[in-house]
Amino acid sequence: MSPSRPPDDKLSTTRRRFLGQGTAVGAALATGAAWAPAQAQPAPDDPSKILGNPVRPYGERSPFEQAVRTHGGKTDEVGVGSFTPLDESLGIITPSSLHYEVHRGGVPDIDPAKHRLLIHGLVDRPVVLSVEEIRRLPSTSRILFLECQGNTQKEWWRKPKGKTVQWTHGLTSCSEWTGVPLSLLLREAGIQKGATWIVAEGADASGNERSVPMAKVMNDVLVAYGQNGEAPRPENGYPLRLIVPGWTGNINVKWLRRIKVVDRPYLTRMDGTGQSVLLPDGKSRHLNFVMEAKSVITSPSGGQRLGGPGFYEIRGLAWSGRGLVRRVEVSMDAGTTWRDAGLQSPVLPFAHTRFRLDWQWDGREVVLQSRCTDETGYVQPVLADLVKVRGLNSHYFNNAIQSWKVAADGSVHNVHV
Amino acid sequence: MSPSRPPDDKLSTTRRRFLGQGTAVGAALATGAAWAPAQAQPAPDDPSKILGNPVRPYGERSPFEQAVRTHGGKTDEVGVGSFTPLDESLGIITPSSLHYEVHRGGVPDIDPAKHRLLIHGLVDRPVVLSVEEIRRLPSTSRILFLECQGNTQKEWWRKPKGKTVQWTHGLTSCSEWTGVPLSLLLREAGIQKGATWIVAEGADASGNERSVPMAKVMNDVLVAYGQNGEAPRPENGYPLRLIVPGWTGNINVKWLRRIKVVDRPYLTRMDGTGQSVLLPDGKSRHLNFVMEAKSVITSPSGGQRLGGPGFYEIRGLAWSGRGLVRRVEVSMDAGTTWRDAGLQSPVLPFAHTRFRLDWQWDGREVVLQSRCTDETGYVQPVLADLVKVRGLNSHYFNNAIQSWKVAADGSVHNVHV
Repeated sequence: MSPSRPPDDKLSTTRRRFLGQGTAVGAALATGAAWAPAQAQPAPDDPSKILGNPVRPYGERSPFEQAVRTHGGKTDEVGVGSFTPLDESLGIITPSSLHYEVHRGGVPDIDPAKHRLLIHGLVDRPVVLSVEEIRRLPSTSRILFLECQGNTQKEWWRKPKGKTVQWTHGLTSCSEWTGVPLSLLLREAGIQKGATWIVAEGADASGNERSVPMAKVMNDVLVAYGQNGEAPRPENGYPLRLIVPGWTGNINVKWLRRIKVVDRPYLTRMDGTGQSVLLPDGKSRHLNFVMEAKSVITSPSGGQRLGGPGFYEIRGLAWSGRGLVRRVEVSMDAGTTWRDAGLQSPVLPFAHTRFRLDWQWDGREVVLQSRCTDETGYVQPVLADLVKVRGLNSHYFNNAIQSWKVAADGSVHNVHV
Repeated sequence: MSPSRPPDDKLSTTRRRFLGQGTAVGAALATGAAWAPAQAQPAPDDPSKILGNPVRPYGERSPFEQAVRTHGGKTDEVGVGSFTPLDESLGIITPSSLHYEVHRGGVPDIDPAKHRLLIHGLVDRPVVLSVEEIRRLPSTSRILFLECQGNTQKEWWRKPKGKTVQWTHGLTSCSEWTGVPLSLLLREAGIQKGATWIVAEGADASGNERSVPMAKVMNDVLVAYGQNGEAPRPENGYPLRLIVPGWTGNINVKWLRRIKVVDRPYLTRMDGTGQSVLLPDGKSRHLNFVMEAKSVITSPSGGQRLGGPGFYEIRGLAWSGRGLVRRVEVSMDAGTTWRDAGLQSPVLPFAHTRFRLDWQWDGREVVLQSRCTDETGYVQPVLADLVKVRGLNSHYFNNAIQSWKVAADGSVHNVHV
């Protein structure tokens, strides 16, 4: 008996009864396929009649799976970000192959046997360490989100820009990172009096350097050599990446090769241009680090189409650079009323948190929103509140509430309300 | 200034001071590279002088990373297991591309648009569901280990067989799985009186069918369509897999296409041969499900070589099919004395748990062991205790304590003590 053949009449009848049930879930099934996957070459109608394929030493995904990162330029362009397809995301772990990334000098080829990390500056014993030396030291692993401060930046201005959640919010991802606490390396090197900051430098052609205050460094910063159980992907810093939990993406310096211990922030090029906030008076606020509480509904989301009235599970991600997500609320009326969503356990500090809420769509136009509250009590703001403080010439650090309009025909659109 | 160039004299001197320190960590650094990675083609000496590569829509690992699954037969052989390289594992997430797998009819090509799940038998409303219909229903995600009951089987007999932890313990891996509770599907179908078991069937050429008692089904079994944030790999059940937390690998039926609700275990071929335990009197114990508490040191482990006396972090994985790992102890004297290892948080039920313990090796021969205790109080046994009950003709469900001998020359070997 092959369930891949068309169902016979009896099954067809019972299927209709099942699908036509008045319960929320039964109704969900009645409306047909909602977000169809991409197509690939034909596969057998009944795979059980055919001897399958041998296993591969290092697996690949099915050719029917075609989610990809996208970026704003030409395929071979250097100097852009590529966006995680959050509309296809499941759970909290982002596949390493789909983790967002931003590079400004291309992705370097690095031989881990040649790569070194120099620690110098205000230390008693400057040192050059190999990757293998670092891998032998006491280690730790944490599931952590990263987010570019430029995530959602195009939504800052008056009109909605991104057609999909990949474009509006795809510069955030979440991995299990493994590495050595930087505090351990610095203690071994011997931190000198007056050492209050570090400058971290990457080995790529962009000359990325970022200043990090010592209090954060000694608290929870890692020198990571592992991402989701193996070495980081080249695009994400292979073989060493600085990991600064909860802080803006580019301070998590990729291809880490140098840490200089210093007595002040160095206001490097990326310290200046990489994360500054332009205020209404024309002044620029520098040294912005923390990614504040934020959330977004990943389905339904822009570009998707609901098959018709019935049951849907509203799904999304929430995160906070201050630690834990305490609460996510969902509005189905553009922010007038709110309902608590369920949070997938374990809820981890500085990690994506998956939220879900059952929803019975009656087929009328609605505007869906989500709102995150973190462990400090901070509540994700509306865009107007951000604009009040920073004006309309800003663009980084946009953590505003996102609105998706579900039209009566089931199409879903990015709107500003 | 490029840290990839040889250090100058001053640095070289200070490096020697740093490495030569009497502290545990300083000593670790003094002994040189321990477990060198595989080599690949040349990369630039200083990548910061060269424009890097463009980003790829779907990332790949660095060519310098060469960890692979291995299996017992020829490269194209069908009907074998392939083993996760646990010696290279980091944290608790196994990369999907390196997740162990066992198949007996090859890995089927399945078009998710054609694939169906039939639910029938003792239900009021039999139903055929598409993958997209299943993906729309209320979902959940959990980080869960899988382990083949044949893991470590070759160690049952008198002599140590596996030279590496990949061979002795590589039939276990851990992923974040996302799917629909099977209880929800069955409640919608309407479970009839007398329904006490299900039989789950896969769509591959092996005709894998397994019986699962209804109490487990209604408690925590999933119909999964997600693994580590994307669809499961073909080798791991694409597009649907039954996930039965804590229970033997092959009951987590891959390529799931049929669930029949029944009134007794069906004692299918795989119910019989796939997990039976042969007892000393020649009788066979059937319907064995739970993977009992187990642990293994992944480094140092067989085939590795320590560079010399000094600091090492002992690292390993522990898990229990009964829920949480409560404690992992490590012995450095073949089981005479034990020390508590640190457990990486979060410790999750039915998930791999990473343990770590600092170790100062004095250069003398030692035998390292780890021992897991789970939340029920059950303590991982020595092999002799398993043999006492099951004799020497058994082989499945070997959760015995593993011993690694570190010889005076730093080489590490599988031994039975």
